Amino acid sequence: MSIKTPYVLFLGDAPDLLAGKVAVGIRQWRPEHCVGQIRLPGCKADCGLPDMTPAEAYQKGARTLVVGVANRGGVIAGNWISVLHDALECGLDIAAGLHNKVADIPELKAEADRLGRSIFDVRHPTKTFSVGKGSRRPGKRLLTVGTDCSCGKMFTTLAIEKEMRARGMDADFRATGQTGILIVGDGVSVDAVVSDFISGCIEDLTPDAADDHWDVIEGQGSLFHPSFAGVTTGLIHGAQPDALVLCHEPTRTHMRGVPDFALPGLEECMDLNLRTARLTNPDVRFVGVSMDTSRLGEDEALRLLEDTGTRLGLPAVDPVRIGVGPIVDTLG
Amino acid sequence: MSIKTPYVLFLGDAPDLLAGKVAVGIRQWRPEHCVGQIRLPGCKADCGLPDMTPAEAYQKGARTLVVGVANRGGVIAGNWISVLHDALECGLDIAAGLHNKVADIPELKAEADRLGRSIFDVRHPTKTFSVGKGSRRPGKRLLTVGTDCSCGKMFTTLAIEKEMRARGMDADFRATGQTGILIVGDGVSVDAVVSDFISGCIEDLTPDAADDHWDVIEGQGSLFHPSFAGVTTGLIHGAQPDALVLCHEPTRTHMRGVPDFALPGLEECMDLNLRTARLTNPDVRFVGVSMDTSRLGEDEALRLLEDTGTRLGLPAVDPVRIGVGPIVDTLG
Repeated sequence: MSIKTPYVLFLGDAPDLLAGKVAVGIRQWRPEHCVGQIRLPGCKADCGLPDMTPAEAYQKGARTLVVGVANRGGVIAGNWISVLHDALECGLDIAAGLHNKVADIPELKAEADRLGRSIFDVRHPTKTFSVGKGSRRPGKRLLTVGTDCSCGKMFTTLAIEKEMRARGMDADFRATGQTGILIVGDGVSVDAVVSDFISGCIEDLTPDAADDHWDVIEGQGSLFHPSFAGVTTGLIHGAQPDALVLCHEPTRTHMRGVPDFALPGLEECMDLNLRTARLTNPDVRFVGVSMDTSRLGEDEALRLLEDTGTRLGLPAVDPVRIGVGPIVDTLG
Repeated sequence: MSIKTPYVLFLGDAPDLLAGKVAVGIRQWRPEHCVGQIRLPGCKADCGLPDMTPAEAYQKGARTLVVGVANRGGVIAGNWISVLHDALECGLDIAAGLHNKVADIPELKAEADRLGRSIFDVRHPTKTFSVGKGSRRPGKRLLTVGTDCSCGKMFTTLAIEKEMRARGMDADFRATGQTGILIVGDGVSVDAVVSDFISGCIEDLTPDAADDHWDVIEGQGSLFHPSFAGVTTGLIHGAQPDALVLCHEPTRTHMRGVPDFALPGLEECMDLNLRTARLTNPDVRFVGVSMDTSRLGEDEALRLLEDTGTRLGLPAVDPVRIGVGPIVDTLG
C-alpha cells in the first residue's frame, strides 16, 4: 500500500468537525498533501481548504480522494456514491478507513477495475505477514504507549516526528491505525490483522534501518484495557522500542468503554510497559510523558505537567500547550 | 460450529504417527466418538481403529470424516481428494484443521453444496465476535498457561476435564486451537481471529455458567514468546480465570522457534501470568504445575516434580506419569 498524493479530502455531509476528524488530521499533519475539500449539501465541517469537485481536484493535481469523514457504523452512505463514482471517472484513486469497504460496493469496484484506479480500504490489511521473530534490528525506534485507548498516542507520535524532522533528524512516523495510515499514506491497521501476526506485522512496518534513523511508531490500546491489551502486547514486542513515551488523559475517570475498569497509575503503567518491552529490547527506557490537558485550565495544566515531570524524573509535556521539544531533547 | 459425531479419522499417507497427531488426540480423548480410520496406501500411522472406506464408516454410524493428519505446509494433497469426495458422496461431513481450506477446493465445495454436506475448516473462524468487555461472568474457569508454546497445555487441559468429570464435577474443555477443536467438535482457533477480538472471542467461548460449572480452557503460546504473547495476553483477559495451571517442558533449551530467547523461570512466569490475569479477575491463583517429563528418566522426573512442588508450594505433576488428580484435589 502506498497511497498517491496529493489528496482531495471528502467530508461528505459531516454534521460537525469531530465527524471529519480524519480530514482534520490530514490537513493538520500533511498540509502539503491537501489540494482541497469536497463537501455535500448540509456539511457542517470545514477544513479550511478550497471547496471543489472531483474533476477540479484532479486538475489541481490531486491523485487520491480520501474519505475524511466517519459516519455511524462505518457504512458508506448512499449520497456519497455518486461523488466517489465521479472521482474514479475523472482520474482519482479512493482511500478510506471505514469499517465497510468501498471496494465492496459493486458499482464502484467495477468502475475502478475498468478504469485501472485503486481503492485503498486501509482498515483491512491486504498484505500477508510473517509470524514475529523477535530478532534485534538495526535502527532506533520510539513507541507511544498509554494508560488507555484514545489518549493522544497518534497526535503525540506525529508531533515527535515533526519535531525530529525540524531538527534534521532522520525520522519516519509509522502508522498502526486507519487515521494515521490515511495521514501518511502507508502503515498497517494492527487491530485488523489476524492475531498470529500482531508482532510480525509491526516488525514488517519497522524494518532494519540506518543506525541513526528513528521509526516513530503510533501505539494502540493499553496494556490495562481488557478489550485490547493483546494488540498492545504484540505491538510492543514487534516494535522492540528503544524509547517509550507514556500518553495520558488526566481527567478520564475510567478506561474507555469499560466503566468497571479504573485507569492505572502512571508508575504502574510504566512498570508493566517496561517489563513487556524488555522481552524484545532489554535496553528500553521511558523518555517522556505526553498529556492531553485540554480539559484543564492553563495554570492547572502546567502545574500538573511540572509535578508529574518532577515525580517521574522525565519531561512531561502537553504536545499542544508546550510541544514535544523536551522529549526530543533526550534523544539527540 | 458443532461438528457431528461420531467420526471416522482420515490418516492419509501419514509417514509416521507424529504426522497423525490430530487423529491420535481424538482417539485418546474421545474414543467413544471414533468408529474407524481411513488410510491410503503407504500410510505408516495407525490409531488402532478398524480400517474402513468412507461408505463403511457411514454404515457404522460415522457422520463426519475428520482429517487427522498434518502435512507439510498444511496443503491438501492431490491423492486425498478422491477420498474426501467419496466421503461427501456417501453422507459424511468433512472437518479439517489445515492451513489451506478444504472448502477452497472447488470440486469439493461444489459437491458439498449440491449434497447439503458441511465442511468445517476449523482453523478459520466463520463467526463474528464482539470486542471483549471484561465484565465478570458467573461460573468458574481454569486456564493453562505455559513457559513456552507446545509444552503440554492442550494435553493437561483435557486431562483435567477428564479427571473432573470422573469425580462428577460439571466441567467442559474449551478448545482454542485446531487440534482441540477437532477433538471436542467445537471451539475457536484464537490465533486466527482478528486481533481486535482476541479477548472477545474467548468471552464468547466461555460464557455465563452455573456457579459450580468449570470451563477448563486450553491456553495458547506464552507471555514470554515474542511471536505470540499478544494472543496469550488477550486469551488470559478473555478467560478471566479463577485458576491457572503452569505448563512446562523442563528439557527445552530455548523458546520454540526463536533460539535467542531463553525460557523464563517458573516463578517469573507465574508472576507475570498472575499480574496479567488479575486485570479481569483479581482473585486468580495458581493451582498447580504440569510438566511434560517424557524426556527424563523416571527417577529424575519424580525428583524434579517433588522439588518443584515443594519450592512453589503447589501440586506439581506430569499428567502421564502421575495424572492431574493432585491439581483437581485443590478445586473441590
